[in-house]
Amino acid sequence: MSIVNINEKLKKISDHWNPRIVGELNDQHVKLAKLKGEFVWHKHDNEDELFLVIKGSLDIHYRDRIETISEGEFTIIPRGVEHKPFANEEVSVLLFEPATTINTGDSEGDLTRDTLEWI
Amino acid sequence: MSIVNINEKLKKISDHWNPRIVGELNDQHVKLAKLKGEFVWHKHDNEDELFLVIKGSLDIHYRDRIETISEGEFTIIPRGVEHKPFANEEVSVLLFEPATTINTGDSEGDLTRDTLEWI
Repeated sequence: MSIVNINEKLKKISDHWNPRIVGELNDQHVKLAKLKGEFVWHKHDNEDELFLVIKGSLDIHYRDRIETISEGEFTIIPRGVEHKPFANEEVSVLLFEPATTINTGDSEGDLTRDTLEWI
Repeated sequence: MSIVNINEKLKKISDHWNPRIVGELNDQHVKLAKLKGEFVWHKHDNEDELFLVIKGSLDIHYRDRIETISEGEFTIIPRGVEHKPFANEEVSVLLFEPATTINTGDSEGDLTRDTLEWI
């Protein structure tokens, strides 16, 4: 029941594509991450995923279109849907997703972070 | 997979203590609400509850202390913990919680909203 200040937590993150956990409830994690550049195409077979943009702008590429999420907006990516996050400039995001979620979903590789740090 | 703009959704809310649903994922709801004044003491037996302050300031009274959550901050209230939200001035909040959550928990009464509207 401690209070989490999102901007203070974001100051502790200096790398990209490496989500940190800042909260846990109902088997879900609240995570913060900074993203820049292109991620990998992937999907999560069993997890819906929420991206809330705190600062900046994030493109989510889908196979048939691109969505741009601006500051103060969120989108929910349903399980099973292929997507690729892309950020031209650094973007800070809050994620809300099941604790079981792996960042690269079914596309394990160099960008996979399967043990996340609490900050 | 549509984009939700939090401030645009908040413009549609003019009453207090009446959460609206703006997203659903993994059997959880994302809700928005405007709060002002004093709520009722209650607890949720089976649901942890996240309050993220979008605009304003929210006090959460616990039996042994009061926490003040400011803009850009969140707190998670574990299941079973008695609490009473209080807002001296109107505050806009985002809630993450299981879809089964009733706003007044175990204290059903005039403020209970058991069928929530999507906006």
